[in-house]
Amino acid sequence: MKVNGTHYRSLWWDAQKGALQIIDQRWLPHDFRIQQLDTLADYATAITDMHVRGAPLIGATAAYGMALAMAQDSSDAALARAWELLHATRPTAINLRWALDRCRAALAPLEPGARADAALRLAHEIADEDVEINRRIGEHGLALIREIAAQKADGAPVQILTHCNAGWIATVDWGTATSPMYQAHDAGLPLHVWVDETRPRNQGALTAWELGSHGISHSYITDNAGGHLMQHGQVDLVITGTDRTTRQGDVCNKIGTYLKALAAKDNGVPFYVALPSPTIDWTVTDGIGEIPIEERPGQEVTHVQGSDTSGRISPVRVTPEGTPAGNPAFDVTPHRLVTGLITERGICEASAEGLAGLFPDLAG
Amino acid sequence: MKVNGTHYRSLWWDAQKGALQIIDQRWLPHDFRIQQLDTLADYATAITDMHVRGAPLIGATAAYGMALAMAQDSSDAALARAWELLHATRPTAINLRWALDRCRAALAPLEPGARADAALRLAHEIADEDVEINRRIGEHGLALIREIAAQKADGAPVQILTHCNAGWIATVDWGTATSPMYQAHDAGLPLHVWVDETRPRNQGALTAWELGSHGISHSYITDNAGGHLMQHGQVDLVITGTDRTTRQGDVCNKIGTYLKALAAKDNGVPFYVALPSPTIDWTVTDGIGEIPIEERPGQEVTHVQGSDTSGRISPVRVTPEGTPAGNPAFDVTPHRLVTGLITERGICEASAEGLAGLFPDLAG
Repeated sequence: MKVNGTHYRSLWWDAQKGALQIIDQRWLPHDFRIQQLDTLADYATAITDMHVRGAPLIGATAAYGMALAMAQDSSDAALARAWELLHATRPTAINLRWALDRCRAALAPLEPGARADAALRLAHEIADEDVEINRRIGEHGLALIREIAAQKADGAPVQILTHCNAGWIATVDWGTATSPMYQAHDAGLPLHVWVDETRPRNQGALTAWELGSHGISHSYITDNAGGHLMQHGQVDLVITGTDRTTRQGDVCNKIGTYLKALAAKDNGVPFYVALPSPTIDWTVTDGIGEIPIEERPGQEVTHVQGSDTSGRISPVRVTPEGTPAGNPAFDVTPHRLVTGLITERGICEASAEGLAGLFPDLAG
Repeated sequence: MKVNGTHYRSLWWDAQKGALQIIDQRWLPHDFRIQQLDTLADYATAITDMHVRGAPLIGATAAYGMALAMAQDSSDAALARAWELLHATRPTAINLRWALDRCRAALAPLEPGARADAALRLAHEIADEDVEINRRIGEHGLALIREIAAQKADGAPVQILTHCNAGWIATVDWGTATSPMYQAHDAGLPLHVWVDETRPRNQGALTAWELGSHGISHSYITDNAGGHLMQHGQVDLVITGTDRTTRQGDVCNKIGTYLKALAAKDNGVPFYVALPSPTIDWTVTDGIGEIPIEERPGQEVTHVQGSDTSGRISPVRVTPEGTPAGNPAFDVTPHRLVTGLITERGICEASAEGLAGLFPDLAG
């Protein structure tokens, strides 16, 4: 999508420099910084410390990491080491493992001498596929928004609530949850988006930055506010992304998603989750029982980063010094609370039958 | 309660100076500043700008404001003006109106010459009553905690989640939601308190400061985390305060309380609300339909205040410049989600029958 009128993807390969370029998202929305990843350690840090974030983007970045590793040392041992190192960066996002497994499966049978080129081609392929998948998610989601818009009094905007950033910078382009919004806006449908700030890392500020850049009307709200808005008829539809979806449609996403799903259910508001199929973990059924939840540093909760009064990006400590903090990064929304899953192949019920119906080739 | 070993109330009358002293809570938990209120405008600002906050403390502060007004001009017109000015400061907290009405009803029949002394005596009385009410709420809540502790494997702490700050600094002393915690801790029961940070104003940092000062084990968490903790059996009990409770037991409290109540219901966790009876609005039945919700400045959401790297208390802006924000300050938790109300007269069901059973003299 566009930044100040120029089209960007959230990562791109610079053929001249022979290196991946990413947007270092730690400085957004205040500062648009491009970073070049030169070493495998750079890749691991970029994922762990969230220079890149969002399940689809993490997957694509890891694929380029495998390509870098193969360019430096294409032995079996190096292939195994790169898989291990990159896999250890973030435990929850399933696309990471999906991309790494896909790379390993494609590269392992090749002669070591052929691996470097093949790995780079595959990384490009994974990135391009992500863009196309998200474009299609947007088409299916657009149909949903169109239906709601048709029932509105003339000119009243469709009000959509979203949590976290499942935007274009969480993918290679378009975003997952935002793709229907971009396409609806471009089709001329009036929208208003309630953007959850999404503590502790305030990824809502990224969503606000994206939507603002694209000219979509939005309001930034606390994570606490959504239930109240739904009680008062101010939300027509919730669309979120997901970091991992189980074969029965349980959704593991940014902490707090579950609370919004409960509120949507309690108020009869449709709750949709947008996801590319690589986000489905076909090996897991019960999300609450089976998915390990990443516990991140407490400092993410006790401190908040922003632009200070002199325009410098710096943190402030909100709590008394030494306050202990808990920081589970994700939660699981059971499928009974999810109205539907918006995938690249269409919209299905959040259930084993629903997913297997759209993906018989993957459900096994 | 104690601050660095010295006992404080959250407000006190300095007879020598003839003026009310408050703790200016805008600087907590970083800085403990005492402020003297000299003019009626000081009182109004202190309430509107949240130097003092919390329904019971707002009520007591307003009573002292009436006393100051009467000391300056005890005419009927001045009485009416003071009521109006103070009443306009915060629209949601019912204790504000309760205290102002009580003062007006007591003072209006008196000769103007007798009003100043009577108003000050009444303010003292309201403050002392609040302390005693909260002490009793703590006794009733302690019994609840004792029951849960008795069912625990030996030594395992009772895990309590709380939202916002319904602590001693939100009242004159003891707090409402925290009073059972202080009394349970003092009785030797092992506790762990999950403290919601409570965006946008992070009143959870005040709760963390209070609990830390009293030596109660706690963890500061995002408002998003509670549902996940409940799904995993890490919360035995939720206790919150309330700004206004309707005659059928609907609870209007800090924004986000409703989401926690939904999660508690979904996970079979008991959800209690601690309240002094002046917080009951007997004129309102349906909280969602009837209670106007204060919309506060968007800057409270887009900016966060804390201690910066040089120890100065300052704000940072989290969002892109100019991001529009929504900031409803309260929400309503319908009584069907509330397990019980902890009042100074005991615990009752959150229903018209439950409340009328405990307060037949007030229910009318």
